[in-house]
Amino acid sequence: MARSRITPEREAELYAAVLDLLREVGYDALTMDAVAARTKSSKATLYRQWGSKPELVVRALRSDKPVSLAEIDTGSLRGDFHAVVDRIDDCRLEQDSALMRGLAQAIHGNPDLHKAMRELLFEPELTGLDALLRRAVERGEVREGHPALKYVVHMLVGAFVARQLIEDRAPDQAFLAEYVDAVVLPALGI
Amino acid sequence: MARSRITPEREAELYAAVLDLLREVGYDALTMDAVAARTKSSKATLYRQWGSKPELVVRALRSDKPVSLAEIDTGSLRGDFHAVVDRIDDCRLEQDSALMRGLAQAIHGNPDLHKAMRELLFEPELTGLDALLRRAVERGEVREGHPALKYVVHMLVGAFVARQLIEDRAPDQAFLAEYVDAVVLPALGI
Repeated sequence: MARSRITPEREAELYAAVLDLLREVGYDALTMDAVAARTKSSKATLYRQWGSKPELVVRALRSDKPVSLAEIDTGSLRGDFHAVVDRIDDCRLEQDSALMRGLAQAIHGNPDLHKAMRELLFEPELTGLDALLRRAVERGEVREGHPALKYVVHMLVGAFVARQLIEDRAPDQAFLAEYVDAVVLPALGI
Repeated sequence: MARSRITPEREAELYAAVLDLLREVGYDALTMDAVAARTKSSKATLYRQWGSKPELVVRALRSDKPVSLAEIDTGSLRGDFHAVVDRIDDCRLEQDSALMRGLAQAIHGNPDLHKAMRELLFEPELTGLDALLRRAVERGEVREGHPALKYVVHMLVGAFVARQLIEDRAPDQAFLAEYVDAVVLPALGI
């Protein structure tokens, strides 16, 4: 293991341990000491490699993403959205949903965590979503400058949050697929 | 003051004090003792009248709603949605948004609060929204059984949550009015 880099295997191991701890104790109770103990690494290494707890946590979350929008390009917007939904596993979705609820809670008291989540998690996804939507505009599926284009992320966030808040259950594949067809595509004029 | 009822004025005073406390200390730190002290009432009265802290808090929130969907009937769905948005005050919206974020946080650890919010806050609103949408169907503005009808609440929740989560700011009137026209009405085929 080089001083300045850890191996990808070791990195994956560390991220898995961070996510386990996050599920077990939540963000506020997760300490760098606990991560160091669980992964048999030194706190100095953790800080040198990741800088801070919010960054370590958010990079661990990012490593665990079930699907990357950048990989998907089916040739139609409906195909792209459904390809995303198809790659989601219901069981994973329920676990991730619980994890994200815990983090949503932690965000309020931790502006550094919110900032790290915006920069490392949300912005790359928004860039991926923009690319996916831009291709739909280039193919002529969605009119250039369509007013709903900038609100696709709001519609998608609503699917996740309202399902939990109002119906008290995690979203699943069938629900998301129906929501894409019933809401997102029609709002974009498809 | 009768034993079994308190006056509407006294009730309003109590609710205002609960909301003040909620903004000051948050849900978890808000105790029935603190409410009793602030309002110069006995804890026994509070419990007799409201049964529990979640119920008192949620009834206080409900008393403070800026707009009731049941009052609105302009003759068109677009008119109805914009009438709702028009009655919202940006400053209030920012305060309420902060209050709701604090409560969203508290919901996770307090199933009783979540249950009270669903029963006393969300369900009456959903009933009001259903009535508003049903009238649009009866007028022929929206096709009966339109697949987006059951997801209007998801779209609206998304507007509030994504704005805060992604853009880190509270929604305002101008944003909500644009969202209704760009997303909600087109998804319903209007």
